Amino acid sequence: MPVQVAVCGPGECTERDFGHAHETGRLLAARGAVVICGGHGGVMAAAAAGARAAGGITVGVLPEADRAAAAPGLTVALPTGLGQARNTLIVNAADAVIVVGGSWGTLSELALAMRRGTVPVVQLGGWRIHDQDGHPLGGVVHADRPEDAVRATGLWP
Amino acid sequence: MPVQVAVCGPGECTERDFGHAHETGRLLAARGAVVICGGHGGVMAAAAAGARAAGGITVGVLPEADRAAAAPGLTVALPTGLGQARNTLIVNAADAVIVVGGSWGTLSELALAMRRGTVPVVQLGGWRIHDQDGHPLGGVVHADRPEDAVRATGLWP
Amino acid sequence: MPVQVAVCGPGECTERDFGHAHETGRLLAARGAVVICGGHGGVMAAAAAGARAAGGITVGVLPEADRAAAAPGLTVALPTGLGQARNTLIVNAADAVIVVGGSWGTLSELALAMRRGTVPVVQLGGWRIHDQDGHPLGGVVHADRPEDAVRATGLWP
Amino acid sequence: MPVQVAVCGPGECTERDFGHAHETGRLLAARGAVVICGGHGGVMAAAAAGARAAGGITVGVLPEADRAAAAPGLTVALPTGLGQARNTLIVNAADAVIVVGGSWGTLSELALAMRRGTVPVVQLGGWRIHDQDGHPLGGVVHADRPEDAVRATGLWP
Repeated sequence: MPVQVAVCGPGECTERDFGHAHETGRLLAARGAVVICGGHGGVMAAAAAGARAAGGITVGVLPEADRAAAAPGLTVALPTGLGQARNTLIVNAADAVIVVGGSWGTLSELALAMRRGTVPVVQLGGWRIHDQDGHPLGGVVHADRPEDAVRATGLWP
Repeated sequence: MPVQVAVCGPGECTERDFGHAHETGRLLAARGAVVICGGHGGVMAAAAAGARAAGGITVGVLPEADRAAAAPGLTVALPTGLGQARNTLIVNAADAVIVVGGSWGTLSELALAMRRGTVPVVQLGGWRIHDQDGHPLGGVVHADRPEDAVRATGLWP
Repeated sequence: MPVQVAVCGPGECTERDFGHAHETGRLLAARGAVVICGGHGGVMAAAAAGARAAGGITVGVLPEADRAAAAPGLTVALPTGLGQARNTLIVNAADAVIVVGGSWGTLSELALAMRRGTVPVVQLGGWRIHDQDGHPLGGVVHADRPEDAVRATGLWP
Repeated sequence: MPVQVAVCGPGECTERDFGHAHETGRLLAARGAVVICGGHGGVMAAAAAGARAAGGITVGVLPEADRAAAAPGLTVALPTGLGQARNTLIVNAADAVIVVGGSWGTLSELALAMRRGTVPVVQLGGWRIHDQDGHPLGGVVHADRPEDAVRATGLWP
């Protein structure tokens, strides 16, 4: 079964985040990974479009119960009808999670991925979390460029 | 976006049901449909294998939170971690639902598909439901052969 | 922790089913059980009202993400935002499941309860399920009156 | 229908967080609120115990499909079988969310509450989130003492 990598990020994003997500999707698909995303716009649509450009398979795990809001470029759209509870599914499906940019929904996916604790979690930009004493929390790998993010998953030697 | 059809049925099934599910998967994939199933054995594995044999894409929506129990032959395995609540997702993802054989889990999928009420639901064999007065309930289309089941979805003229 | 019993049934029901559900809720609460239901109208509202009349605690597990559609008389309304996937939660929460009347949603709850396989499932009226050869399926206990249904749970000697 | 307030926090917590959660639960129950929590130990058990000490009703929304891991002191235990997807339900059920202490699971609840965007979110200690430029993110109210946290919900004048 192929490797599956989740690309998470806000539905409304900066141009820079869009570019990062597109290139990340492209690089993942070129390596044979299935790209899992939330199926909406912004970072999600960018990752799907990038993966598609490289001939890859992309799955959008939608919060709605139908496919009306699905981004173009998805190979499969899974309308869960679970609302934001679908974020857990995106994370569970992944051999690695790459987070591009920041939003509250995105942060929930980052936190759920770290809570799961079994796969690499990589951030490209986005929000930062500090403990009660102001120290940055360990565990998330930070990358500056898509190729570094993909490499940081450790899935390809 | 391609048509998506769910094939539902028991994880332990008769040889006849296995054959029906395999042929149904094959016919669906040959028509370009993505086959959605529960990702386990029996009817689910048969539908996935049939679809794969025709070069199609299959998605297994698993009850577990990991992919350990995924049937071989799936293009994508989505470990939901939702238990039997994942049955709703299989039904929500489908432009038509084909039910092969009978079990309590399978019946829940049939009932959820009829509850949703917006897509064709076709049964190949399996259990029968009667109202309080002993009359068969309408709404489900019954087919005897895979080609009839696929035709009864109305998705292909 | 108190005993928890689910009362499942259609949101639009006959007067007879309404009466059955109300009396079932009342009897359960009088025995100290928490009554779990789907939180909407019909059988669900009747069971909640009956339980409340006996001073009991009722929990409505709603498909919506907010409490706007909650039946009056619930002690707690849990808006799951899961749609019909919430049916699994109702069943999982119960030491016994009593099904009053029939509908496709109700049938999915009956099937999920039987699929779970660990607690008594009792039907008061409602639909009947037959196997492929036309034989009634075993496992569900049928009762004619609320007091028989409550007794058939086996929770009270 | 009574006010419902979620108290979220780690299953393993400091003594200080335990005390904060217990007192928060007590104050909420004394004001007539139903206390919703994750149903496990640490902050969750403390909030439930505090609410119970004040004669209140507490609901534990468990990740597991059964009640084996339920904290003592819960009025109702709802075993969702959804894993961490249950975090969304806790947040959806609340008229206000009070977060005590920090963990990845707790952060996902905080993020989901902010993502929902319709109810007050108050933190007692715990982690801090900064945007990409290092600025603290607005929206979450920070409190130092349980009575301040309860007041900050704005639910009681």
